[in-house]
Amino acid sequence: MMKPASPIEDFSRLADYLGEHKIKRTAAVAWPEDDHTRDAVEKAANAGFLNPIMIGSEATTDRYKGRFSTLTADSPEDASEQSVRLVQEGEAQVLMKGFVNTDVLLRAVLNKEKGILPKGKVLTHVSAAMISNYHKLLFFTDPAVIPYPTQEQRVAQVEYIVNICHKFHVACPKVSLIHCTEKPDERHFPFTVGYEEIKRMAREGKFGTCIVDGPLDLKTSCSPEALQAKKIASPIEGDADALVFPDIEAGNVFYKTITLFAQTETAAVLQGTKVPVVLPSRGDSVQSKFYSLALATLITTDNEQDL
Amino acid sequence: MMKPASPIEDFSRLADYLGEHKIKRTAAVAWPEDDHTRDAVEKAANAGFLNPIMIGSEATTDRYKGRFSTLTADSPEDASEQSVRLVQEGEAQVLMKGFVNTDVLLRAVLNKEKGILPKGKVLTHVSAAMISNYHKLLFFTDPAVIPYPTQEQRVAQVEYIVNICHKFHVACPKVSLIHCTEKPDERHFPFTVGYEEIKRMAREGKFGTCIVDGPLDLKTSCSPEALQAKKIASPIEGDADALVFPDIEAGNVFYKTITLFAQTETAAVLQGTKVPVVLPSRGDSVQSKFYSLALATLITTDNEQDL
Repeated sequence: MMKPASPIEDFSRLADYLGEHKIKRTAAVAWPEDDHTRDAVEKAANAGFLNPIMIGSEATTDRYKGRFSTLTADSPEDASEQSVRLVQEGEAQVLMKGFVNTDVLLRAVLNKEKGILPKGKVLTHVSAAMISNYHKLLFFTDPAVIPYPTQEQRVAQVEYIVNICHKFHVACPKVSLIHCTEKPDERHFPFTVGYEEIKRMAREGKFGTCIVDGPLDLKTSCSPEALQAKKIASPIEGDADALVFPDIEAGNVFYKTITLFAQTETAAVLQGTKVPVVLPSRGDSVQSKFYSLALATLITTDNEQDL
Repeated sequence: MMKPASPIEDFSRLADYLGEHKIKRTAAVAWPEDDHTRDAVEKAANAGFLNPIMIGSEATTDRYKGRFSTLTADSPEDASEQSVRLVQEGEAQVLMKGFVNTDVLLRAVLNKEKGILPKGKVLTHVSAAMISNYHKLLFFTDPAVIPYPTQEQRVAQVEYIVNICHKFHVACPKVSLIHCTEKPDERHFPFTVGYEEIKRMAREGKFGTCIVDGPLDLKTSCSPEALQAKKIASPIEGDADALVFPDIEAGNVFYKTITLFAQTETAAVLQGTKVPVVLPSRGDSVQSKFYSLALATLITTDNEQDL
């Protein structure tokens, strides 16, 4: 039996890991007409884990001739549709949004006939954060896509995030179901009752090897001292690998607060689609887009646990 | 006409300010049976702005004999009721929870006959944060009391927070109504429509001198660069003094994230009650409880603007 790999605990280690294991994927890049997108894609190609197909204006295809594969598109809409088609045909294993409005790319992704969200799959957003004050990567969902998750959507979120932790070789990820207190409260917060069902599913092995607990607040999830101060017990032990937020407002506030106030690098992808979709926000740094491409690439690999 | 005072921009300045202006208030301290509460109260008394009435066990009243006023209580419930009565009778201008469960103190505060929440007033929680990466104090509401504010409750939150900013001599506080994007969205986020009405009320002067804008996300509220990157205009200009969160989950995540990951000191009070109530969480530091007592004391003063 193979010795289990040690967890990938930061983003620079992630790029190295992809290189060491000669992991390389083809990415369809929709409308790379801005410097930020181009810089991130070039960096990922130089790092050796990305083979980009640049789907852009004639100027862009001219620019990359001989270096990367290119396709000419006549608009952001056209570029989005061509990118989705490449994924559909199995030519690309990663999709990246360039200088395109999110709505435009999502319309192509979600198109009932030509899109790449399989029927019955839940589309959601998963981020990974490298927070200067935390001792490992912290994964979280969903700061950007689902407003108020239904129980079915939340189950999918747990499934995706556990799967991603496994890709990072976190053998038994600790997943915290976030709420402002540690008490289930059917009357004011009905979703906390759903948390009980998710914990039961986790115990029954529905998500693979993992620990799921909650409701827990953010601090007791991520600080053993805070957990102790509240005199409560949790198998997460203040050492969470992943946080599932109750709604988009809570997830979004977390994402914005850590990046603004806590010296944090993030990476993010959409899950549920046929391949991981990198969908950066306008304010994201080149570094963050590069990390997102690395994250997307890692997600396309098979789990060692499955081998 | 008096020259307007400069804003009180951090917590240590706040304690100095109370001293310089010889501001001193009597506080009813319910069941000060733990070191954290005692240390914070003693510190505030030594700083000169607090005159405590310790309502505790016989051991506690013995301990403080000759130093502070004391009253003997035979249980946390009894201490809570006695504290509320002191406020009711005008003997105390601040109320502080000691080693008492929040539920117990709130029951005394909210009692229909003997309580101290005037009929029709909204009870809510307001915090002030000194975040190491932000250039001034940041006030926010509500991380702890109202689950999903109604429009009426949100209007009260804006009223209270503007009032508190004025007490800190922020002449024209910039108040941001938080949402995960900058777009009102009646279908998924009906409260964003209510935001429009609150902005109109602010323009009509209902809250006194202030600027209210939203929906805005946390980053565009507090970072001029983030605002610019999104290419949107806001009179808050990425320089918010106060944040009104859409719900308790978002507010609580903000509170827990800044205190855990962003080197932040906080102070907090309940508003709506006859006098400010200091209601610390189990995990709060002595320093945070001390700052909360200073905040509560400041709130009891008259606005210079009203003089």
